Amino acid sequence: MSPSEGHSTALRPIRIIEVGPRDGLQNETDIVSTEAKVSFVNALSETGVAEIEVGSFVSSRAVPQLADSDEVFRRIERLPGVIYSALIPNERGLERARAAAVTKIAIFTAVSETFTRRNINCTIGESIERFRPVVFGAKRDDMTVRGYVSTVTHCPFEGAIQPSQVLEVMRQLLDLGVDEISLGDTVGKAAPRDIRRLLDEVVPRIDRSRLSLHVHDTCGMAVANVLTAWTEYSIEAFDTAAGGLGGCPYAPGASGNVATEDVVYALRASGASLTVDERKVIAAASEIGKVLNRRLSSRLAQVRIEQTAYEGVA
Amino acid sequence: MSPSEGHSTALRPIRIIEVGPRDGLQNETDIVSTEAKVSFVNALSETGVAEIEVGSFVSSRAVPQLADSDEVFRRIERLPGVIYSALIPNERGLERARAAAVTKIAIFTAVSETFTRRNINCTIGESIERFRPVVFGAKRDDMTVRGYVSTVTHCPFEGAIQPSQVLEVMRQLLDLGVDEISLGDTVGKAAPRDIRRLLDEVVPRIDRSRLSLHVHDTCGMAVANVLTAWTEYSIEAFDTAAGGLGGCPYAPGASGNVATEDVVYALRASGASLTVDERKVIAAASEIGKVLNRRLSSRLAQVRIEQTAYEGVA
Repeated sequence: MSPSEGHSTALRPIRIIEVGPRDGLQNETDIVSTEAKVSFVNALSETGVAEIEVGSFVSSRAVPQLADSDEVFRRIERLPGVIYSALIPNERGLERARAAAVTKIAIFTAVSETFTRRNINCTIGESIERFRPVVFGAKRDDMTVRGYVSTVTHCPFEGAIQPSQVLEVMRQLLDLGVDEISLGDTVGKAAPRDIRRLLDEVVPRIDRSRLSLHVHDTCGMAVANVLTAWTEYSIEAFDTAAGGLGGCPYAPGASGNVATEDVVYALRASGASLTVDERKVIAAASEIGKVLNRRLSSRLAQVRIEQTAYEGVA
Repeated sequence: MSPSEGHSTALRPIRIIEVGPRDGLQNETDIVSTEAKVSFVNALSETGVAEIEVGSFVSSRAVPQLADSDEVFRRIERLPGVIYSALIPNERGLERARAAAVTKIAIFTAVSETFTRRNINCTIGESIERFRPVVFGAKRDDMTVRGYVSTVTHCPFEGAIQPSQVLEVMRQLLDLGVDEISLGDTVGKAAPRDIRRLLDEVVPRIDRSRLSLHVHDTCGMAVANVLTAWTEYSIEAFDTAAGGLGGCPYAPGASGNVATEDVVYALRASGASLTVDERKVIAAASEIGKVLNRRLSSRLAQVRIEQTAYEGVA
C-alpha cells in the first residue's frame, strides 16, 4: 500500500494560510501602494484560502514596506469565513492590531540563537519573554495567536538544527498560550527526510490541527516537503504565498515562499480536498507581479492557464 | 521507519542523463551556434553526469535547431566514462549516428495514440515497426539503445493514461531489443501518486537498472516525483536538463525538463550518492542561458551560489 492510499484524512480540507501580502511583500524594496495591497488582499479573499496574513504591526523603520498595515486593514473587504491576521512584534503592535479589529495575530521566534539575534536582536529566551504580555493581552481580547518558529531544520548561520531544539522552543510558545505553531524552513534547504525527521518528533506531541508547515522554495524541494507532510503526517495547514512571492532579508540566499498555486495544484493532484481555486490565485499574483514589475516564480504561473486543469488518473 | 531510512541502495550512485543539449535546445526557436552547443556539451562533460544526449539525427526540417548534430558530435571532446547519445528517428538517422561514432542511440514512441500521431504522424504500432530496423542495425553495431516512452501518466490530448497501456508499449520496445526504457511525463502533470501507480506496475516487470524517469516541471511536482521514484522504488537514473531547459512543442503548456541542478541537490539532500557537481551544472546552464537570452527556470540557479552547499542534518 502506498502512503497516499493509506491516507485516512483525504477528505478533510487543507487550510491554506496565504502569507503573500506580509511575508511576500516585506522583502520587496520598492514600496507598493496601499491601494495595490488592498486590491491584492481582496483578490486573495476570493480564492478560497482559509486565512490571509495581511500585514505586520512592526515599526515602519524595520519594515518600511508594511508601514501602512493599519490603513490596509481599514480598507480591505473582510469576507465571512476568511481569517485576516497580522504579525505583531510587541505590545505597541498589539494595540495597533486591536485598533484595526484584527482577530488573529502571529508572534515569531526561531530555533537558532544566531538567527534570532540577527532577526530581532535578542536571545530566543528574551524573545519569548517579550511576547508574554502580547500573548496575554491578545488572549484576553479573544484573539487567536499563532507562533512562528523559524529555522526548524537549517539555520543560514548555524547549519543543521535538531528536532529537540524545535521541541524546546515550541514548548515555550505553547506555555505562553499560543494556539498554533507554524514550523518554518526559513532558508528553504529542507529535504523531505528533514521534514520527516522533524515531524516524527513534533506530531506525537501536539494536535495536528494546531500545526502549519511554512516552507520556502530556495532549493526546489518545497512542494515535495508539503506533499510529504500531508501524505505521511496528515499535516493540513500550509503557509504559502501567491506567485511564490517572498524571501527573507535575514536569511541570505533564501528565495520566496512556496507558491500557493503550486501547492494547491500538487495537493489536489495528490488526492487532497481543497477549496482554493488556483486560477484565481494566479490572477491575484499576476496583478501584484505587474505592480512589482517582476516575474512570478511559481511553476503554474508560467504555463498557459487552460493547461493547468488537473486530469486525475482514474 | 520512514521510507528514506528504509532505503536499501542509498550508496548506489544515481545516474543523471543530461538531456539539455537535445530535449532542452530543440524547443528554442532562436538557432544556437554550433560553437555554443559544443561548449555547452563540453561544460556538461565536466559536471559528473553519466550521460549527455548531445543531439538528434532527425530531419533538419523537423527540428532546425539540431540540424548541426553531426558537426556537434565531431567537435565535442568525449571524456572517458561519459556516454554521448543521440536521438534517432529512422535508418537514415542511424547512418548519421554511425558516421558520428555515436555509441548509444535513443528511439521514441508514446503511450497515447493522439500524441504519437501529432508528434511523429503515425500510430504507436507503426512507430514500433519503423524502429525495428533501426534497433536491429544499432545492436549489430554494438550500440546501446534507449527507448523513450512519452505521456506515461497524462496525455495533453487524451488525458489520463493507464499503467497497463504503458506496460504494453514497453513490452513492444523490449521485444524490439531496446536496452533501457525512459518513462516520460511529457506534459509534467504527474503527481507522486501517479508515479507510484505507474511504478507499482512497471518495477516488478523490468530490472530497475534498465529504467530511467524523465519528468517535466510544468506544474511544480517534478522534484517530488524524482524523490518518490528514488526513495520508494529505488529508481536510479533520471533524465534532467541543466537550468531546466526544454519543453515540448507537441505538448501544449508543457514547460521545461526538471533541472539537473535541482534534482542533484534534492537527491543528495535526501541521502543519495551522486557524482554530479551542481555548481558546475549551474555554470554550464548559465552560459547557454546567456546565449539563449533567457532566465533559467531552476531554483538553484536563482540563489547565490555560495548558499547552495547542502548542510546535512546530522
